[in-house]
Parts: sequence; structure tokens; C-alpha cells
Amino acid sequence: MTIIDGKKISEDILNEISLEVEQRTNKGYKTPHLAAILVGDDGPSQTYVNSKINACKEVGFKSSLFKYDNNITEKKLLEEIGKINNDDDIDGFIVQLPLPNSINQENILNCVNPNKDVDGFHPINYGKMTLGIDSFVPATPHGILELIKRYKIDLNGKKCLVIGRSQIVGRPISILLSQSKEFCNATVTLAHSRTLNLNELTLDADVIISAIGRPEFLTENMVKEGSIIIDVGISRVKDDNSNKGYKIVGDVDFKNVSKKTSFITPVPGGVGPMTIAMLLRNTLLACRKND
Amino acid sequence: MTIIDGKKISEDILNEISLEVEQRTNKGYKTPHLAAILVGDDGPSQTYVNSKINACKEVGFKSSLFKYDNNITEKKLLEEIGKINNDDDIDGFIVQLPLPNSINQENILNCVNPNKDVDGFHPINYGKMTLGIDSFVPATPHGILELIKRYKIDLNGKKCLVIGRSQIVGRPISILLSQSKEFCNATVTLAHSRTLNLNELTLDADVIISAIGRPEFLTENMVKEGSIIIDVGISRVKDDNSNKGYKIVGDVDFKNVSKKTSFITPVPGGVGPMTIAMLLRNTLLACRKND
Repeated sequence: MTIIDGKKISEDILNEISLEVEQRTNKGYKTPHLAAILVGDDGPSQTYVNSKINACKEVGFKSSLFKYDNNITEKKLLEEIGKINNDDDIDGFIVQLPLPNSINQENILNCVNPNKDVDGFHPINYGKMTLGIDSFVPATPHGILELIKRYKIDLNGKKCLVIGRSQIVGRPISILLSQSKEFCNATVTLAHSRTLNLNELTLDADVIISAIGRPEFLTENMVKEGSIIIDVGISRVKDDNSNKGYKIVGDVDFKNVSKKTSFITPVPGGVGPMTIAMLLRNTLLACRKND
Repeated sequence: MTIIDGKKISEDILNEISLEVEQRTNKGYKTPHLAAILVGDDGPSQTYVNSKINACKEVGFKSSLFKYDNNITEKKLLEEIGKINNDDDIDGFIVQLPLPNSINQENILNCVNPNKDVDGFHPINYGKMTLGIDSFVPATPHGILELIKRYKIDLNGKKCLVIGRSQIVGRPISILLSQSKEFCNATVTLAHSRTLNLNELTLDADVIISAIGRPEFLTENMVKEGSIIIDVGISRVKDDNSNKGYKIVGDVDFKNVSKKTSFITPVPGGVGPMTIAMLLRNTLLACRKND
């Protein structure tokens, strides 16, 4: 059994990016610049944005944070995005989700300049990804692909079960893994809240990618011997043994399931750290296109 | 066992469209106008385009055919498309595929005005479809959805196997059927040329949608009792009993498989006739948006 070390791989990627930034600087090229838009004062959103900004510093990117009050109007936010779209120094930017209910998320994402859409959520980039055309691939599925590639796990012909059909993880990874590309070519099944007899599907799968955020629901009796497990869930559960009073767990009962697997990602330290690394890589790609 | 009558349903849709065109005319609204671009002298392409033009006449649409020689340059074709993009009278248009090898198909489809892209192949429309946002859905998968709806076949929770991952049929129908929408919500598996043990998958499926164009490969022993079969394949096979010397068959051995099914589409007369009907409906939608 191999534990897939997302922390290590993400550090490798950040180092690769750092090196390229240094080389770019030496050659007189532009420093990559990522901007983040944060609306309101949602705690986890602030934490995520801060991690992204800190990662930018780590690799030598410029970063900007645009913070707006919870009561900003959609019209005003669209105007602000318009300015960022037209700011030649900013190579890529993200709109941290969720947005307040008063703002239509679709309208906002549709107005992001597709060339700066490093989250890959604009329909044109999402469409290109689905069509197999080079584009900004959303960070989490991109991170999963990268782990698979760096561990040289060939999914060709394997039965792969994706659990969860979210637009940021389940849907895109189900599409990507079934494409005719290196390490992919899997036979993918997409399961979701309406799926019946999930146990039958998990037991039959060579590969399970779980992205539903239900703490440790995937148990030992649900997986077959030798399977490959990618755990995208991140949940906080009560833990009296921890100083914080809680611990972070994934969708998978890691302790017991891992014994049956050939490869498995831990939580934390699996898919999670890859997300920011892939966001920065998309930003570097966006910057290169402006050279 | 119910044979799904695509011919009848497509005629119903054409009648509905005719009626709306008549009502529009009476109210002084614009007549819908579909244009088709045909490059070269590929026989089947000419036949398809002619059928589309004839269907336009049948429902009272205006139609235009733009024919170009096989040796037209990509640059010139892009210019011609630019003119059609800007022609206010044309509500929607299609570029008949395949294009000559000298022309990059991706470049051409990307330059179609997304508001006139009634084939739904522009990345922005393909992305919207994948994201579940209202858009022009490609005609063949749209036709399959329409058959399912009109026969009130609820796929909620059903195991659905899509065979073939083409961008015009397999990929989009696999996405659409797994979305959280009425009649959909299926647990979808997408099989393709690299899939192993296809028989196991077909035997386990409640619904099979086959779109690979291999004549009558799906046989009685491969499907379970009571299954629902949608056959998208269209192949010509030698037939000495026919005056033409050939007959048209689907991916399914209809005669023997149909006995085991609850619903099945025949070939011809199943999915085929739906394609043009849905193309015209997209054109009507495009026209309405210009009202």
C-alpha cells in the first residue's frame, strides 16, 4: 500500500514554479500576478484566500486582494471585475466562492476574462476542458490528475467510480479521467445523491474518487482488495483528544480502508495541498501567454 | 415492450414548430432563418445538409446554403463565417462536418457566434451544457432526451451505460443524463474503446445508449430483461434482398434484443429523425431571442 503524498508533490510543484519565476526574472520577463476577490466576511473563505496569497509570496508571484463588503451590489461587483479584466499587470484572478445570496454567481463567473480565469469556471474554459482542448482546468481535479501522473498510476481501462457530481470536483474529474489522454482512458461511473446501491458500485470499482464531504462514510467493507482511493472530502469532526476539540477527516475511514488499497490519499495531506499548487500553475500559464 | 417511435415524435415536434412559425408570422414577428455551410463534395454531407434545408421548408423557416470548394482556405472560410455571424437575418447556422483536412475544425467552430451556434459545438455552449446552464444542446443528445421525456421514462437512480465517447453524442448524453434534472438523475457509466469486459457492463445496465456505429454488435445475450435501449448507431450493411443492395442497421441486433427490453428505439426511425427536429427547435429558440 502506497500513501500518496500530496503535501510532498505540491511542494515539488511550488518549487518548480519558484524556479521558473526566478528564471523569468533573470531574463527580464514579467512577474506572474494573481488577484483574489473576496466578498463578505465568511471565515473559511478568508482562510482559503489567505492561503492562496501566502502561496503566491512563497513562489515569488505578485498578489492582490480585493475585499468587498457583504452588501456590495452585483452591478458594482461586475464593474470591479471589469477593471481587473482590463488590468494588464494581473495575469489571473479568482472570485472566492460562495458569494452572498444577493449576487448571481453565474453572472459573476461569466464576466471573468476567460484568459485570466485561472479557476477554470468560465463556461468557455469548462467547455474546452470537456471537449479535451487545452484550457485552464479547475484546480482540484487538476491536482488529482497530477497526483495520478506523478505516481505513474495508469487508469487505462480501469473501472473508476466518482462519488459526487459537483461542478468543481466530481463532474470535471469524471470527464477528464474518461478522456483519451495519457494515464486516463478509464471507464468512469459518476455516482451522486440519487444513486441506488452505492455499495455495489464501490465494491466493483478499481478506483474510487470520493468528493461528497461526508466524514469517513467509505468503510472497509465497501472497497475491494487492491483498489486505488482518492479522498477529496474535508470535514471537521469532534475530537476530545485534540487541543482544538476537533480533527479534519476525509470521506474515507482511512485507518481501516487503507489496508485494502494499493494507493490511497490521506486527509489532510492528500488532494488538499494540490489545489493551491495547481491554481498557481494556472496563473503561471496565464502569465506565459502574455510574454 | 414499447418501440420508441422517433419518426412520430419528430413529426410532432416539426408540427409544433410549424404552428409557432405561423403564429409568429400572424403577429408580424420575424421568420426563423437557418443557414448551412457546406465545404467540398462529400456525398453524405450533401445529403444531411439537403435534409436540413428541406425540413426548414416544411416548417416555414427561411434557409440559406453556403457552398464552398474543397480548396477554400481556412482564412477565407473564417471570413465567410464572420459575414454570417454579422448577418442580422440569419438566426442560426451550422457548419456541416467533417471539414477538409486542410482546415482546423476547432478554429472554425470557435469562431461561430455563440448566439447563432444552433449545433451547440462552440466551447461556451458546450461548457454551459456541462454546467447545467440553459444553452444550445447538440441535436442528437437533445433528441434522445426529448424521446425519454415524451415517453415519460424516468431515469432517476437508474444505471445507465453510454457506449462511445464522441463529442457529438456519447460525451454530451453522458453528462446530461447524470444531471439533477427532470427525467435524468441517472447513475451514468461512459464506456469507450478502452473499456474492458463490456459485456459485464451491458448486462448490469438498466439503460443502454449505444453510439459507436458498429452494426448490430449489441446482442441478446448482452442485455438484461426489461432494459431500455437507445440505439444511435447508423450503419450500411450489404443486403442482397434489397433493391439497393444494402440496408441500414443500428448498433443493436434489434430483432432479438427487442424481445428482452421494456423500451427500444428502432433504426431507422428512432433517434435519427429527432436530430433535425432538435436542430430546428434550437433555431427557433435563437430566433425568439432576437424578438
